[in-house]
Amino acid sequence: MSDTKDFIFNQTMMRIRDPEKSLAFYRDVLGMTLLNKFDFPEMSFSLYFLAYQDPGEIPTDPLGKAEFVFMQKATLELTHNWGTESDANFSGYHNGNADPRGFGHIGITVPDVYRACARFEELGVEFVKRPDDGKMKGLAFIKDPDGYWIEILAARSLAEMIVSG
Amino acid sequence: MSDTKDFIFNQTMMRIRDPEKSLAFYRDVLGMTLLNKFDFPEMSFSLYFLAYQDPGEIPTDPLGKAEFVFMQKATLELTHNWGTESDANFSGYHNGNADPRGFGHIGITVPDVYRACARFEELGVEFVKRPDDGKMKGLAFIKDPDGYWIEILAARSLAEMIVSG
Repeated sequence: MSDTKDFIFNQTMMRIRDPEKSLAFYRDVLGMTLLNKFDFPEMSFSLYFLAYQDPGEIPTDPLGKAEFVFMQKATLELTHNWGTESDANFSGYHNGNADPRGFGHIGITVPDVYRACARFEELGVEFVKRPDDGKMKGLAFIKDPDGYWIEILAARSLAEMIVSG
Repeated sequence: MSDTKDFIFNQTMMRIRDPEKSLAFYRDVLGMTLLNKFDFPEMSFSLYFLAYQDPGEIPTDPLGKAEFVFMQKATLELTHNWGTESDANFSGYHNGNADPRGFGHIGITVPDVYRACARFEELGVEFVKRPDDGKMKGLAFIKDPDGYWIEILAARSLAEMIVSG
């Protein structure tokens, strides 16, 4: 459709309590690259953009580096409102899977769900569903540090399960 | 990182009340392609996968077509629990931007925010923020049929605004 030519599904935004924990998870456990961080001191928040991207492709000049973020498909935008990480009264963020429901999860396609999940297990990641739990074998759900759900799937085996019923 | 090689940020899942309305919005207004629909009659729900994708690239055999969905970056997965569309007592889904907060929005990069928004306006789309509202000029937020927020941004102008402060 010419009216929507060159539209890009660029970002999915979730609020996070503690960027140190979220970066340890999305970067070090899930293997995403931190593309950029933007600070807004007058409004006391920061944005962290992550994606599966070769770090060598990221421009180094500030404007080019910022523009690059917004040209990509499938970035994760993590919003940190300053202070939540040390606020004992902060009640945490809502993952959308208990009432009131809405957003459900993000999903990561991996070459081998069992291998990926064995590593997550070693790294102490919390599971909602392990690959062999329930009827849907070879499909897992894990939790990020805020409790958001992340589906871990393999393209071929999930397609076979769905198509064969 | 070799442990996470070939991981793909494949999907963002949101629950929707009425697939007819959501398809009219994401396909006809936002210009995404419906890649596939999966029905789960024994659990009374359907999944709709959309993305910015050339329809000509989608395989036609059922298994290849299903696998294709899970190999893409940046698909939107809409979950329809059957019956909500005609249930007068259904209270709707939660968009995450009022308490309890969590998920915030998805974001679409467009070549020209003003041109895109003029068309959305003509098509009767609801706005959270028009491009010239507030301090962030040239950045908009619209609502989908369930009330989820969608940021409409242009890469270069947003990068300039952020980098120049």
